[in-house]
Amino acid sequence: MSLIVQKYGGSSVADAESIKRVAKRIVETRKAGNEVVVAVSAMGDSTDELLDLAHQVTPIPAPRELDMLLTAGERISMALLAMAIKSMGHDARSFTGSQAGMITDARHGQARIVDVTPGRVRDALDEGAIAIVAGFQGFNRGTGDITTLGRGGSDTTAVALAAALHADICEIYTDVDGIFTADPRVVPKARKIERITSEEMLELAANGAKVLYIRAVEYARRHGVTLHVRSSFNNNEGTIVYNATDEQNRERPVEEPLIAGVATDLSEAKITVVGVPDIPGKAAQIFNIVAKTGANIDMIVQNVSAAATGLTDISFTLPKSDGQTVLTTLTAEQTDVGFASLQYDDQIGKLALVGAGMRTNAGVSAKLFTALYEAGINIEMISTSEIRISVVTRADTVNDALRVVHTAFGLDADSDAVVHGGSGR
Amino acid sequence: MSLIVQKYGGSSVADAESIKRVAKRIVETRKAGNEVVVAVSAMGDSTDELLDLAHQVTPIPAPRELDMLLTAGERISMALLAMAIKSMGHDARSFTGSQAGMITDARHGQARIVDVTPGRVRDALDEGAIAIVAGFQGFNRGTGDITTLGRGGSDTTAVALAAALHADICEIYTDVDGIFTADPRVVPKARKIERITSEEMLELAANGAKVLYIRAVEYARRHGVTLHVRSSFNNNEGTIVYNATDEQNRERPVEEPLIAGVATDLSEAKITVVGVPDIPGKAAQIFNIVAKTGANIDMIVQNVSAAATGLTDISFTLPKSDGQTVLTTLTAEQTDVGFASLQYDDQIGKLALVGAGMRTNAGVSAKLFTALYEAGINIEMISTSEIRISVVTRADTVNDALRVVHTAFGLDADSDAVVHGGSGR
Repeated sequence: MSLIVQKYGGSSVADAESIKRVAKRIVETRKAGNEVVVAVSAMGDSTDELLDLAHQVTPIPAPRELDMLLTAGERISMALLAMAIKSMGHDARSFTGSQAGMITDARHGQARIVDVTPGRVRDALDEGAIAIVAGFQGFNRGTGDITTLGRGGSDTTAVALAAALHADICEIYTDVDGIFTADPRVVPKARKIERITSEEMLELAANGAKVLYIRAVEYARRHGVTLHVRSSFNNNEGTIVYNATDEQNRERPVEEPLIAGVATDLSEAKITVVGVPDIPGKAAQIFNIVAKTGANIDMIVQNVSAAATGLTDISFTLPKSDGQTVLTTLTAEQTDVGFASLQYDDQIGKLALVGAGMRTNAGVSAKLFTALYEAGINIEMISTSEIRISVVTRADTVNDALRVVHTAFGLDADSDAVVHGGSGR
Repeated sequence: MSLIVQKYGGSSVADAESIKRVAKRIVETRKAGNEVVVAVSAMGDSTDELLDLAHQVTPIPAPRELDMLLTAGERISMALLAMAIKSMGHDARSFTGSQAGMITDARHGQARIVDVTPGRVRDALDEGAIAIVAGFQGFNRGTGDITTLGRGGSDTTAVALAAALHADICEIYTDVDGIFTADPRVVPKARKIERITSEEMLELAANGAKVLYIRAVEYARRHGVTLHVRSSFNNNEGTIVYNATDEQNRERPVEEPLIAGVATDLSEAKITVVGVPDIPGKAAQIFNIVAKTGANIDMIVQNVSAAATGLTDISFTLPKSDGQTVLTTLTAEQTDVGFASLQYDDQIGKLALVGAGMRTNAGVSAKLFTALYEAGINIEMISTSEIRISVVTRADTVNDALRVVHTAFGLDADSDAVVHGGSGR
């Protein structure tokens, strides 16, 4: 008997009919002889509707109360799902984050999991029931208050339960067939990836792949949870995200492909700090100022100093949503830092090539740059990690870049991918 | 400093605007120097909408899951209300039934309160905050499960909190101005009652007055909680429901009016068991059979036996919703009981005249029957308690009966009552 954790996002439980469909799938998994724990998101857009109500009441809702409000969403979906399963003749029990033992810190709206004590979930399984757990929500022991885990919280709930219950697998159900070598809406010949390491998945997620949240992948990697990302609309096998350092996976090495996939991201902007005195400590000073805003800096590039002037330029990318705050904060400190001016550019696109195989293959950068050059696409910034190369281009060339790079690295499938609805959540 | 518990029903918090209006009223009560605890229902029709969702998923939702589902409703309204208050610069904290210590038995959908341990509510008050508590919901310690209190549950929550916190008063906010001597929609000259004993209120509630639920009144009476039923749409004084046996009220006796008010009820039906053998034990046998269905029997009348036949008829009233079940159950036992036939009549109306003053006044029944006779209204059943006389008439005459009785007992006001929207809940 295997223990399977399944996670269903909002689009999979958008209405009564979808809930019944999902219930049927869960029952089938149970009937196949597995123990089943389900983490479920709020129905469709209901979280946004609750947020909207909150903002009708007050422009800045109190964080504790906002969490209390939003957690009503999963309460509804999980109760309906449990009812649906019970009406099919199988025992099911729904649990709030608190009841399922999702213990978090007290940071409302973005709580971190500090402990998982799923005693009641384990009991339900032992009694033959299917356990339905509210995604996205937790409980702080110190305050006794309800918390929420922030974006991608339901994925994290599923992975955390899988880790605590030593599940055999954590299935993430979404509305796409799995992880693709590139976004199939841009690259029709994108291929579904059968297996990918959690390291590679992390890089893809961090660079714009939307199907899995980076936080859930991180949690899975740290706790050795194997993920299976698949569609709730068909029975196709999806993508296995596995931990390459796991004992189990080391025993059965798979030949690492050179490149796992290519991700693109249009959500970032670039700030260039022009004319920074090229003396020690200036970069630190700038990024300390930026850090105070809480903005999430991605790529950083510093030009070689022009010796004659003793000045240099520092560019970095960050989410567009943080742009204005960072500009304002930096401007306030201009005299102190001593830079000449700031440039803001929100017309950039980022492309990231990810693959554990590039660790041992020197020619990857050269091949990437050549492909882009031949397509007439200009590279504005470059940043690399052990298993990733990212480049920044003009926003309107990034999709072209994605297609030529996908082809250049031999990722194209023989036929076009089938594209379903929207993106997963 | 007084401690005031306020209860707001669904119609008082139907949308964001109503919630802000209610928040303002709560803040005013706090600013006047009172400690304030609020019990709140789900917004408008949201409980019905959740029920509807449940029935889309399955015709017979599992009771545990239905409670989990429905309690999402108050979670939403209480969080929004707490946010609204905080945005006005006053501290507020929302609590679920479980967090507020509403401990119940495990009967899902109709749980009874077994203990109230409002430690967190008390702490919030001690820290200067306004406590917002979800009405209608509780928590069973044995199962660790969420429960709901059934119809009128939010009134009961408010009264139970008032009792446990030794509140000075429990204000029940609704969409009418208080308790009236009769339904103002039928009797325009109905008067708002200033003070009424909980005993009288119980009889009125049991006989069709919709503003307060009988269960909440019972709880208030048993625990010596004084209620103030008033409108959330204006600042008029409403109706005080007090315990006549309280020390405090005995010290300040008020002159008891002969009649407190008149209630009518069109929700009942009458079943007559025809041709019952007039031997000992037959009535007991019949009502034991009826009791098994869980139906709530109201009035019972047995005709004098016709000596020649040795047979008698037994009539009783019950909610129309229980009619079919009771008929079926009795028919199944017909041979065993030995009655001739059953008659079912759902075209009856009930009128109840309530007043503690009738205890010491012999002429009340005579006056009632005379008034009805003079109006040409036929009486089909009569039942009396110490402080109430009920009669059953044809359904289509009960409103006429209400008006003539209201006038006959001198209850008419000089001017017509102002009638607001719907009924309270």
